[in-house]
Amino acid sequence: MKPVPISEKMDLKAYLEEKRTRINGALDRFVPKDQEYPPDLHRAMRYSLFAGGKRLRPVLTMAGCEAAGGDPEAALVPACAMEMIHTYSLIHDDLPAMDDDDLRRGMATNHKVFGEALAILAGDGLLTLAFGIVSEPAASALTERIRLQIVAELARAAGCRGMVGGQSVDILSEHAPEIDVPTLEYIHTHKTGALIRGAVRIGALAAGAGEETMTALTHYGDRVGLAFQIADDVLDVIGTEKELGKQVGHDRKRGKKTYPGLYGVAESRDRARELATNAVAAIGNLGSGAEPLRAIAHYVVERVN
Amino acid sequence: MKPVPISEKMDLKAYLEEKRTRINGALDRFVPKDQEYPPDLHRAMRYSLFAGGKRLRPVLTMAGCEAAGGDPEAALVPACAMEMIHTYSLIHDDLPAMDDDDLRRGMATNHKVFGEALAILAGDGLLTLAFGIVSEPAASALTERIRLQIVAELARAAGCRGMVGGQSVDILSEHAPEIDVPTLEYIHTHKTGALIRGAVRIGALAAGAGEETMTALTHYGDRVGLAFQIADDVLDVIGTEKELGKQVGHDRKRGKKTYPGLYGVAESRDRARELATNAVAAIGNLGSGAEPLRAIAHYVVERVN
Repeated sequence: MKPVPISEKMDLKAYLEEKRTRINGALDRFVPKDQEYPPDLHRAMRYSLFAGGKRLRPVLTMAGCEAAGGDPEAALVPACAMEMIHTYSLIHDDLPAMDDDDLRRGMATNHKVFGEALAILAGDGLLTLAFGIVSEPAASALTERIRLQIVAELARAAGCRGMVGGQSVDILSEHAPEIDVPTLEYIHTHKTGALIRGAVRIGALAAGAGEETMTALTHYGDRVGLAFQIADDVLDVIGTEKELGKQVGHDRKRGKKTYPGLYGVAESRDRARELATNAVAAIGNLGSGAEPLRAIAHYVVERVN
Repeated sequence: MKPVPISEKMDLKAYLEEKRTRINGALDRFVPKDQEYPPDLHRAMRYSLFAGGKRLRPVLTMAGCEAAGGDPEAALVPACAMEMIHTYSLIHDDLPAMDDDDLRRGMATNHKVFGEALAILAGDGLLTLAFGIVSEPAASALTERIRLQIVAELARAAGCRGMVGGQSVDILSEHAPEIDVPTLEYIHTHKTGALIRGAVRIGALAAGAGEETMTALTHYGDRVGLAFQIADDVLDVIGTEKELGKQVGHDRKRGKKTYPGLYGVAESRDRARELATNAVAAIGNLGSGAEPLRAIAHYVVERVN
């Protein structure tokens, strides 16, 4: 395993650790405990939420807030909402009717443990709770205007013109005889990209960012989002080649259309690195508060899992 | 068929017709058209949204606003959000892993037409869009504070402590050897009740209602919600008895726990009527603006479909 790349200007590993601890603590407070009735539903919601995710999206929200000149703590509640939406999307994506996955991060998927009905409801519950925590008066010190902007941004990023739209095209394109480049790009920019772009933008909203900063951070988010998806697809191919007994990648077996499938691994990697460089360039005018975002852009394409 | 009961003080049928026309028109504007990419997803969302629902919840939102002294038009956007959430819940409830229904209101259910994957995503898309339309700046003239209160109320009503919680207990109680009265009451007050209570309360929020009016309307909503569920369960038994070739009701076949199953049809009917009367009593101090709500309380228990 390659070590996690450390930026020259900051200790990214320590930064990620600290933010993950903050996010995990807050998520634990926001989601009803197992003991609260009905226990099975809450257990199912917590199972996937605390299944060892990297917390990339909520970290991007807090780092986006810092890059826009805000206190990253101000973005903690919307960051948790982001992670709830990400987790709900994984639970629903893993369902038999969708990607039909039994394992995620080495653990049984939600419906394998709790059954399909509860998995559907746990996803529905997490999606709804995301909007709940941002809108509840007690949840954060952000102004009402900003919290409403964040609700709107969450809905745009996650909805039928964002993530859900991308997921629908991805599912319908499986096993299609061929797929054109615009369709592949639509899937990437929507299925994964929309939520990553939204994560960064929501951080900027929490900081009360002006138009220029928002535009820069949006460009950053778009590029990191696509870089992340390409890196993910490459990992699917590379990871599988390392394991004996599996001849083809997960995505390919399923007929998924991917970047490496279309352009090969080497060109895909180059493209991901180029996108990370462009993402960093997009926030060149932001000060030292943007260092975490700069380090994360490189981390996203060099990560090994 | 019995005629729809007409209140002495108002023409409820004309009122419902007028409100439904307003709601249907607004829903049509808020949901992406079939032509908008990705068309299959939007088609699936629109299919269930325009499948001939009674629009009871959004009408309650507009009538709740009027009862609290507001202009019912001010509640049109949140009313549409309510209907989107109701429709998403029906799409997910009908899935094979949940209630496994092939027909709803005489039409094929969403997953029978579009497949399970798209049905799950159409539900997710409608739930997300509900929060989107309330939070988008252009969507309504309500203040930011009120729109944020409405987002919070929607999330409470629909989430794991509301509708989704009730649905999870309902599913897990199916075919359980027996069910106690508190569990049946939890299912009723959460699965159906929470959204109906929320519908009325959101109308009151849109009117900027004070605490006293809000309390009265909350009591109204709780009682109408339970009355509606009991009437629905009674219709399931009565309707089925009328049809030859079906010996038992839909709910009973599935092992669903219902009010008539526990108390019989006659006692259940009496209880629903008593609840409607109590609902009307709860808003006794509100003026003539509450007439629609009063008429709706009786309509809910006397309706024939």
